[in-house]
Amino acid sequence: MLIARVVGDVVSTIKDDKIIGRKLLIVREVTTENEIVGKPIVAIDTVDAGPGDVVLIAQGSSARQTNVTKETPTDAVIFAIVDSLEVQGQVRFRKQR
Amino acid sequence: MLIARVVGDVVSTIKDDKIIGRKLLIVREVTTENEIVGKPIVAIDTVDAGPGDVVLIAQGSSARQTNVTKETPTDAVIFAIVDSLEVQGQVRFRKQR
Amino acid sequence: MLIARVVGDVVSTIKDDKIIGRKLLIVREVTTENEIVGKPIVAIDTVDAGPGDVVLIAQGSSARQTNVTKETPTDAVIFAIVDSLEVQGQVRFRKQR
Amino acid sequence: MLIARVVGDVVSTIKDDKIIGRKLLIVREVTTENEIVGKPIVAIDTVDAGPGDVVLIAQGSSARQTNVTKETPTDAVIFAIVDSLEVQGQVRFRKQR
Amino acid sequence: MLIARVVGDVVSTIKDDKIIGRKLLIVREVTTENEIVGKPIVAIDTVDAGPGDVVLIAQGSSARQTNVTKETPTDAVIFAIVDSLEVQGQVRFRKQR
Repeated sequence: MLIARVVGDVVSTIKDDKIIGRKLLIVREVTTENEIVGKPIVAIDTVDAGPGDVVLIAQGSSARQTNVTKETPTDAVIFAIVDSLEVQGQVRFRKQR
Repeated sequence: MLIARVVGDVVSTIKDDKIIGRKLLIVREVTTENEIVGKPIVAIDTVDAGPGDVVLIAQGSSARQTNVTKETPTDAVIFAIVDSLEVQGQVRFRKQR
Repeated sequence: MLIARVVGDVVSTIKDDKIIGRKLLIVREVTTENEIVGKPIVAIDTVDAGPGDVVLIAQGSSARQTNVTKETPTDAVIFAIVDSLEVQGQVRFRKQR
Repeated sequence: MLIARVVGDVVSTIKDDKIIGRKLLIVREVTTENEIVGKPIVAIDTVDAGPGDVVLIAQGSSARQTNVTKETPTDAVIFAIVDSLEVQGQVRFRKQR
Repeated sequence: MLIARVVGDVVSTIKDDKIIGRKLLIVREVTTENEIVGKPIVAIDTVDAGPGDVVLIAQGSSARQTNVTKETPTDAVIFAIVDSLEVQGQVRFRKQR
């Protein structure tokens, strides 16, 4: 899974029926220090993530393994909000409250 | 899912039976400002997208989760037309009417 | 799906039983102007493609959705021969007869 | 499968139900000499791997083929701990005891 | 599918039950002239390939379509040994006997 930050969202009126009512967020992959390194990806949100949240995304067929995304044309899903990231014994990222 | 722009189409007479009647469009990935960054990808259209439209594409097995692409050799599908893209509270792209 | 050109073929005597009798072609991704940009990929041919043909290939599990490749260890399939490619209203490639 | 080293872990309170109780480790791809070359990936641990371990990870739908990850939104799994890597007849890596 | 050369192997004692008894080889992608271009990938061998063999590997879910890899956490499989590669009418690689 990739570590990513929520940076925006997508509005779409004309879309596949199975996507209606789903929240389409724009995320970008980040380092463990929360620096953006990836290009924009659109992911379905299943955990009520908000702008600036660091999240985990699953891609490919695994993105359809949540109740929200089952049998939909979804290849990227936000399935967790990150509280903290620890690398080599040091906390590199901690969510602000 | 990737954000992409429709730039062209493919004509093919000799093809797998399951693809007959499907619309094969050429798309290229774009930034949230609608600048082309990706190389040409061919995707099956399921939302009647037209030239210049900014769309969302799903790839891999997820591309076969629409009624149009079910059980076909499709690894990229256009499943939504983008109305607008917002990043960090600002609208970066809005569809022209 | 990727646009690719058939450039060669593979001979293999020792192989998985499910691949016996399948035609293994070497393809390389091309631009819409038929210039080679990708490295060699081996794909199963399902449309009787020949050397120099510009074709469409599907990858991943979608490559197993043809009658020829069903339930085989195939992750790339040639499922269409391209007649022409049009980008921004101009024909960029047309198959020679 | 990729060869990777365990470098850290992720703490997440808000996440998909199917991921509850799973151990989320941060790994990075390494060469056969155990030098880091890849960016951070988050993988579910199924073999009780620890910090510094060199492991094998499977990605995509294959990551869901273990008892721990079945039907979960997991696209990367640690399924083996590496004892040694041999390349061209020479041991390039051996696990410290 | 990719063209790759077998360069080594992996020893692992602690691993998923479904992988026990499987041969884990290290391969690297090669050009049609058998020059190494890719980084190390670990693949399950199903055709009794040996060091130096040029082979075909299938990735993703397709890697699980052999009898040896069915329902295992395998995302890369060696399913054929290459006898020869021909590009633009010329033999570029032929297996030594």
